Amino acid sequence: MPYVTVKMIEGRTPEQKRALVAEVTEAVSKTVNAPKENITVFIEEMSKENYGVAGVRFSDK
Amino acid sequence: MPYVTVKMIEGRTPEQKRALVAEVTEAVSKTVNAPKENITVFIEEMSKENYGVAGVRFSDK
Amino acid sequence: MPYVTVKMIEGRTPEQKRALVAEVTEAVSKTVNAPKENITVFIEEMSKENYGVAGVRFSDK
Amino acid sequence: MPYVTVKMIEGRTPEQKRALVAEVTEAVSKTVNAPKENITVFIEEMSKENYGVAGVRFSDK
Amino acid sequence: MPYVTVKMIEGRTPEQKRALVAEVTEAVSKTVNAPKENITVFIEEMSKENYGVAGVRFSDK
Amino acid sequence: MPYVTVKMIEGRTPEQKRALVAEVTEAVSKTVNAPKENITVFIEEMSKENYGVAGVRFSDK
Repeated sequence: MPYVTVKMIEGRTPEQKRALVAEVTEAVSKTVNAPKENITVFIEEMSKENYGVAGVRFSDK
Repeated sequence: MPYVTVKMIEGRTPEQKRALVAEVTEAVSKTVNAPKENITVFIEEMSKENYGVAGVRFSDK
Repeated sequence: MPYVTVKMIEGRTPEQKRALVAEVTEAVSKTVNAPKENITVFIEEMSKENYGVAGVRFSDK
Repeated sequence: MPYVTVKMIEGRTPEQKRALVAEVTEAVSKTVNAPKENITVFIEEMSKENYGVAGVRFSDK
Repeated sequence: MPYVTVKMIEGRTPEQKRALVAEVTEAVSKTVNAPKENITVFIEEMSKENYGVAGVRFSDK
Repeated sequence: MPYVTVKMIEGRTPEQKRALVAEVTEAVSKTVNAPKENITVFIEEMSKENYGVAGVRFSDK
């Protein structure tokens, strides 16, 4: 605990995802005073076909 | 805000998904009085291997 | 199936939530050709203390 | 109702997933006294690239 | 890993929830061959005001 | 985009939650190169009655 889920458009590089997991874990650990060993991060990648704002999918823009 | 997630079996056409995002956004906007620009829709597609009711996966029926 | 989750700030009236469930179900049924009996809607209400954009919680604005 | 989501690393065999859905449904039905017909199970599979504990992704270990 | 979420109507007793967590953990451990220590269970309770099927909330039936 | 959900035991102070939202937003913005204005953070608080590891709820320990 805590469990962190980051939902974003697919296509980030391995380096970006590696840094994301490391730095988000650091930010959570520091601000809510949780040991890093207890923090879990999930990345959920969306395609532009399955994500829309204001009624329009990103793949249709 | 609001954020809407629609979870369903994979295989809908692009036309169906486009209409889904448009019409769900319209329905949410109208009923809870939120500007369409503020409404986000996520589609999550499941495979029949990963979805079961009454203890049986859809791929096993 | 489908399963729809609508996440929004708490405080909508019962009438708004009732209409939301009815009209979102209608929109999903029509666009992806699913019988209304098979459609489930979950409303998740957030407090302003637990929701932030651009690094600032809504309760802190 | 209830709706059960099991999130795990990808790679389980069809036999494991079939048994998982059957036995989790049984366990839920028995303990909260819900008919099996009303219980839904979703399996969500994660890749090791998108899952980390203690700041390190499983694919980086 | 795995992470299990059970979403259901509020109102189960502590005894039911305790048994649910124990038996679901057992079922997952056995079927996907994961040590019990690695299995997490979250219970999410819904109110009847925030849950509908076929376009009608349970609180409106 | 991205959308970040942090799930943790209830009981953090407003100051901790404010810092959490600010610093997680910063970490995500920096590592995946997203403008802070586009980043949303949701905090989900769990009770110890509804959260268990290894088959035992935290409220039963």
